[in-house]
Amino acid sequence: MKKIRLSTGREVPARAGQSILDALKEAEVFLTASCGGKGTCGKCKVKLLEGKAGIEGYGKLTTEERKAGLVLACQSFPEGGISIEIPENSRIVVGEKIAVSRAQNLLELVQAFGSGVSPLVEEAGLDIPHPAIEDNSSDLERLKRALREARVLDDGHFNFSHAFLSGMGHALREAGWEVVFRYAGRDAVSVKPKGRTQYGVAVDIGTTTVVVYLVDLSSGRLIDAGSTYNSQIRYGDDVITRIIQATEGGQLSTLRETVRDDINGLIGAMLQKRGIPFGDVEFAVISGNTTMSHLFWGFNPASIREEPYVPGVSFYPLLRGADSGLAMDQGGIVYTLPSVASYVGGDIVAGVLASGMNRKSEVALFMDIGTNGEIAVGNNEWLMTAACSAGPCFEGSGIRHGMRATEGAIESVKIRPGDFEPEIGIISGNHGEKTPVARGVCGSGMIDAISEMLLKGVIDRKGKFHPGLGTPRLRRGEDGMEFVLAKNSASGDITLTEVDIENILRAKAAIYAGVSSLLKEVGLTLDAIEKVYIAGGFGNYLNVEKAIILGMLPDMPREKFVFLGNTSITGAYLCLVSGDLREEAGEIASKMTYMELSVSPGFMNEYMSALFLPHTDASQFPTVEKMLGADQPL
Amino acid sequence: MKKIRLSTGREVPARAGQSILDALKEAEVFLTASCGGKGTCGKCKVKLLEGKAGIEGYGKLTTEERKAGLVLACQSFPEGGISIEIPENSRIVVGEKIAVSRAQNLLELVQAFGSGVSPLVEEAGLDIPHPAIEDNSSDLERLKRALREARVLDDGHFNFSHAFLSGMGHALREAGWEVVFRYAGRDAVSVKPKGRTQYGVAVDIGTTTVVVYLVDLSSGRLIDAGSTYNSQIRYGDDVITRIIQATEGGQLSTLRETVRDDINGLIGAMLQKRGIPFGDVEFAVISGNTTMSHLFWGFNPASIREEPYVPGVSFYPLLRGADSGLAMDQGGIVYTLPSVASYVGGDIVAGVLASGMNRKSEVALFMDIGTNGEIAVGNNEWLMTAACSAGPCFEGSGIRHGMRATEGAIESVKIRPGDFEPEIGIISGNHGEKTPVARGVCGSGMIDAISEMLLKGVIDRKGKFHPGLGTPRLRRGEDGMEFVLAKNSASGDITLTEVDIENILRAKAAIYAGVSSLLKEVGLTLDAIEKVYIAGGFGNYLNVEKAIILGMLPDMPREKFVFLGNTSITGAYLCLVSGDLREEAGEIASKMTYMELSVSPGFMNEYMSALFLPHTDASQFPTVEKMLGADQPL
Repeated sequence: MKKIRLSTGREVPARAGQSILDALKEAEVFLTASCGGKGTCGKCKVKLLEGKAGIEGYGKLTTEERKAGLVLACQSFPEGGISIEIPENSRIVVGEKIAVSRAQNLLELVQAFGSGVSPLVEEAGLDIPHPAIEDNSSDLERLKRALREARVLDDGHFNFSHAFLSGMGHALREAGWEVVFRYAGRDAVSVKPKGRTQYGVAVDIGTTTVVVYLVDLSSGRLIDAGSTYNSQIRYGDDVITRIIQATEGGQLSTLRETVRDDINGLIGAMLQKRGIPFGDVEFAVISGNTTMSHLFWGFNPASIREEPYVPGVSFYPLLRGADSGLAMDQGGIVYTLPSVASYVGGDIVAGVLASGMNRKSEVALFMDIGTNGEIAVGNNEWLMTAACSAGPCFEGSGIRHGMRATEGAIESVKIRPGDFEPEIGIISGNHGEKTPVARGVCGSGMIDAISEMLLKGVIDRKGKFHPGLGTPRLRRGEDGMEFVLAKNSASGDITLTEVDIENILRAKAAIYAGVSSLLKEVGLTLDAIEKVYIAGGFGNYLNVEKAIILGMLPDMPREKFVFLGNTSITGAYLCLVSGDLREEAGEIASKMTYMELSVSPGFMNEYMSALFLPHTDASQFPTVEKMLGADQPL
Repeated sequence: MKKIRLSTGREVPARAGQSILDALKEAEVFLTASCGGKGTCGKCKVKLLEGKAGIEGYGKLTTEERKAGLVLACQSFPEGGISIEIPENSRIVVGEKIAVSRAQNLLELVQAFGSGVSPLVEEAGLDIPHPAIEDNSSDLERLKRALREARVLDDGHFNFSHAFLSGMGHALREAGWEVVFRYAGRDAVSVKPKGRTQYGVAVDIGTTTVVVYLVDLSSGRLIDAGSTYNSQIRYGDDVITRIIQATEGGQLSTLRETVRDDINGLIGAMLQKRGIPFGDVEFAVISGNTTMSHLFWGFNPASIREEPYVPGVSFYPLLRGADSGLAMDQGGIVYTLPSVASYVGGDIVAGVLASGMNRKSEVALFMDIGTNGEIAVGNNEWLMTAACSAGPCFEGSGIRHGMRATEGAIESVKIRPGDFEPEIGIISGNHGEKTPVARGVCGSGMIDAISEMLLKGVIDRKGKFHPGLGTPRLRRGEDGMEFVLAKNSASGDITLTEVDIENILRAKAAIYAGVSSLLKEVGLTLDAIEKVYIAGGFGNYLNVEKAIILGMLPDMPREKFVFLGNTSITGAYLCLVSGDLREEAGEIASKMTYMELSVSPGFMNEYMSALFLPHTDASQFPTVEKMLGADQPL
């Protein structure tokens, strides 16, 4: 038995002739491998640090990647003991720990909403007479007869899909004709042997990240959670590029398959771990922005980016497992969170639902800062929403050393007055490493860094470096001036360049201008806002103080800010377990009024004013102005 | 420009670099090519008689086939003028002439049934407001709004399938938002520009042959008809072998795809000829025996052949184009004729419908003699049915020189008293050949031959050759004694062997025993039967007199026999154009009582008695006994 040593110190056994991919899988270390280990998708990259492996092929690996020691885990067979490192992009995170820690909270959340667990898919036990020569009507007729006799629906009239019929005969016989019949409204979903647990999956399709929750539908309990990158990234970072790829590039079905493989990889890993057949997953909820939902379903997204920005579908009918391509019962049901407009999708409806702002009389502001920035304002009587086109820079895209808020990301920055030496905080993994190594800077690190640089006089209010600071941290690089946040790290020096800062200022200006335009539209001032819900990738890490100094968040009493994390997945979970909340999501989407900022007359002025640090209009940021004092005049 | 000369004398031009397949297609000579001309399916075989062609590959052709001069038309490129022969198996018959000649009759038939043309798919014209910034709800919401405003359904609640939604956005824009919305009940089918004709296809899936009718749904007019072999034949001649292949052989999806490709090849050729996009085919009707219907839908047929012979589905719900894999609108609707039992399928229900016997008070007998033999007896008050397991020998299978009733088949035989020289009739093609060449013997030829041999004393009442006849036509072959029907034909001598005759006797005995058992079960004698409807492959050719001498058909007044041809396709057509007749088909299937002959106590005796010529019980065949006279005692 050979050993594969991971960079975390863990050792995994490998049998003769077993690929690294398969050996890791047996040890429940799951790599992304959309092609199922055929060597064609090029995604299960690992870095061979020590030892030798027989390599059957390099597939899509570039020459550079090969030089850097990367191999495909599915095509590599350890010859003796080896040591490997698993790059972040290759790993599927199936986070049992996260799942367990969230499980209690989620069930409490459902209760807090005053809603019981009431899954879409209902069930009825049936004892169907065995076929005999003298009673030889077909499987389907026998089932229908049993349903009529059990009075499962008053008129007994169910819709049977092709997928249901395809699996029915085998299931009836496997169960010895004593079955649980599952259905959603009039739609037959499955027949199964009695006593089988019914599962559901909640899926958040982010432009950058995909998250899946596996849930026991009888109890509503969260069984497991997993996340991975949305591999559509290789077709572009933002939704616009992907729409162009899908339409002009003719890649709609490729984009569709790509994200479906990501989701199925997560579902598959979670099910495999527990020996659950995929056919036991009978209900799925999809939450994503309008483009992601269209691409998931394979619907042409062209009109989303063409004026007047009309999506194909906003309120989705219930569709079938077989239509979705998901690793689930093919007769199962898929609910898609409704969207409001082309740039305010089901993820925002899920977020508003999870925030509960639509139930209270107090006026609240909801901000989802992910690959894009969407905002909503309102209460139990009205809701308005807008999209900010902030772009994906807080997810690391378009920033020289940008990265997602994962292991190795600089997430906090302090700058020492006098010599301008930075003190950085790095996200450490669960791998038990003692001293985490910086690999890049994530959104919260960027916000920290810029506000610190402003406060300590490294940059001016336009985001330009002050010349002649007398620190080697400030230097000239390829993109003009740059500030070194970390020296000699794993990936070399990690810097923030003037171009990076410009990108970040544009993003924060778009968000702030969105908020102020939306408030103006409804005739409210910041004082009227009682709560600010922050959702999105850095919901857990964001330093509000620093984000206010940056001028991204409004200058409001800090206690009004509430972090909600990924509300898209939370909302999807709520819709998975509760029919009432599913209905509420529909009401939210119907009720929310969309404001198209790109045609709003005041927006461009708001945006231009917000490009400064924190803002051209000092009166909007009184506490920041106080901090900056007279040292940093406009 | 090169020329391809067909064995019919016709010349077809071929451009440089054009394959034989493509050149023939342009000339509307369609070959079977399931793979679309990639060289993988091995079906577009042609025989190169003269000239040279560049061959890119031989694909699945066997060494023998190559030696015989066969090439794949898609992989062969004429180098100069060539002559080819197209084997029967390679040809798709798109029979405009047949279609036109049947068209009038079919419409008259619909009228004769007192039924108007009322297709399943209805339509409504909608003018949908164009999207605008101030009215930017999604495509689907706009459509729903227009449907509500036009009050297309009272409650406005339609079901939208994934396939419908996938094509909707493009269709709305292509039509400039002025559309025809099509629907079946609550199911949305399509949106199309106004003024587009709506087509439907009726499909008869026989165990041996597939027939497709293309119909204009607005008028009910038959546009074209085509037929080809069911390529599942390569997995076995009869339904039992195919069920075994699909289940124990694990080939269910292969068998499914095989017949789907056959059907799509026919539909594709007919549409291509007229430049009709496949999306304009919005309704399809499938008629086939229970096994064929299961295989078409990909439903597991295992239980069909296991006691107590229960099919998975008998009354099919309406399913979607997308589920069927047919070359049609993916949101379109597919109706499947209901079956009665595992061995009495939708084709028999279609046949009874087409015969009209279920509407009259006179008691009629319906016999469908195809790859199997199914019979029904009854009137407007009752209907009984049974399956005979006759086997496919009348379709040519299991007979040394057997073939289908197509070009080159010996369809009639007379034997000269004295020297026993046979006089044969051969089916000639439409190809203008002067002297057709015998290539084999079809079902009606077999029946003719055996009854003639009996009448003229070549064989005895057990089907054994009389020794010492003193004719070289009777000789010893590989399978024992054999009679030479044709000498030195294209395929060498064409004979009927003693083994062939045994097979034919078994088949005719099964059919006759089925009829007599069924009549006994209902307590009727032959006198009570007012009409005998003969359906199936040789409905047009069968010589009743000879079939009675053989003892296959009951000895009844000849004027009671009515030939209906392929009633499976006629019934499918009727269901395509008329909702009333679709409903009537459902009533027939519900009303028909199935009798399982294999457990019927008297059946085996009936069968054994019927193995003689014409029958052990001479009193059942008085007119035949008179003909045979004293020369042929029992």
